Amino acid sequence: MKRSSFANFDCALAQALERVGDWWTPLIIRDLYLGVSRFDELIADLGLSRNLLTARLRALVANGIVVHDRPARGPAHYRLTQAGLDLVPILVALTQWGDRWVNLPGGPTIRFQHKDCGALSQVRVSCDHCDGTIAADNIVPVAGAGRHDGKGIGEVVKRLAARHQ
Amino acid sequence: MKRSSFANFDCALAQALERVGDWWTPLIIRDLYLGVSRFDELIADLGLSRNLLTARLRALVANGIVVHDRPARGPAHYRLTQAGLDLVPILVALTQWGDRWVNLPGGPTIRFQHKDCGALSQVRVSCDHCDGTIAADNIVPVAGAGRHDGKGIGEVVKRLAARHQ
Repeated sequence: MKRSSFANFDCALAQALERVGDWWTPLIIRDLYLGVSRFDELIADLGLSRNLLTARLRALVANGIVVHDRPARGPAHYRLTQAGLDLVPILVALTQWGDRWVNLPGGPTIRFQHKDCGALSQVRVSCDHCDGTIAADNIVPVAGAGRHDGKGIGEVVKRLAARHQ
Repeated sequence: MKRSSFANFDCALAQALERVGDWWTPLIIRDLYLGVSRFDELIADLGLSRNLLTARLRALVANGIVVHDRPARGPAHYRLTQAGLDLVPILVALTQWGDRWVNLPGGPTIRFQHKDCGALSQVRVSCDHCDGTIAADNIVPVAGAGRHDGKGIGEVVKRLAARHQ
């Protein structure tokens, strides 16, 4: 069954998910980041079908998240663009959510050392203005300037507007 | 077609995706966070089928991310647990990735005011130790203490170990 598209959602989250939210896609991005970057290596590590990996990589390339490098010397491989690299910290945060909320035997399977300070970092999401931690209970969603007449944001924006009356 | 399960992956990211990576699920979490919390409201806002929403909510409840509240007075609704609330900053970061990398007409549809400082925040992922920004090129993945014999992490851990020899 083909998934329904979020293309007509006026919501940046839906648009992000339209590009990276397919099943397998975040794990493919993870592997590319960690250096597993050839087609057959990805198959061996993830165990998905060749057809599915082909489809996922093709979509990632079309969406500007991955580039297919075919160098004159050395093997063809895939690598993340800047848009793809910008997803890595978000995937690290999601990985550590998994470490925290899912009981994995023996603890974290992977950790992340921050080069700048040397610490094995527990990441947090923080505010660019004050550096304080961003949490569900200390942010107020506000309607932005973008369109709100598409699906998947109308109800929300109506409520946000009502809140401010 | 039933998606393949990541349940036997020794990887916290795969385990996180097993719980929140289904198509529609991040948008359901977004709506619950924003106050769209009754079954029929979710249907109206997102436009997915009742069967699919039922399945997604049931999985979120089973995984401890959502609670179904049926108060004596007032309508039944769904709300996020602490595990669910902990996903909100990550979804904010992904929303702003969408703002940055997807061309949405008119700019952001939604913004987030940080109560602590009052600014409309652009969030970043930062290190709990030094507060510096976490980016793909300033972290070093390191094998953790957890199991590595399952699928989807073996190749990566082999490479991480080789890197440190």
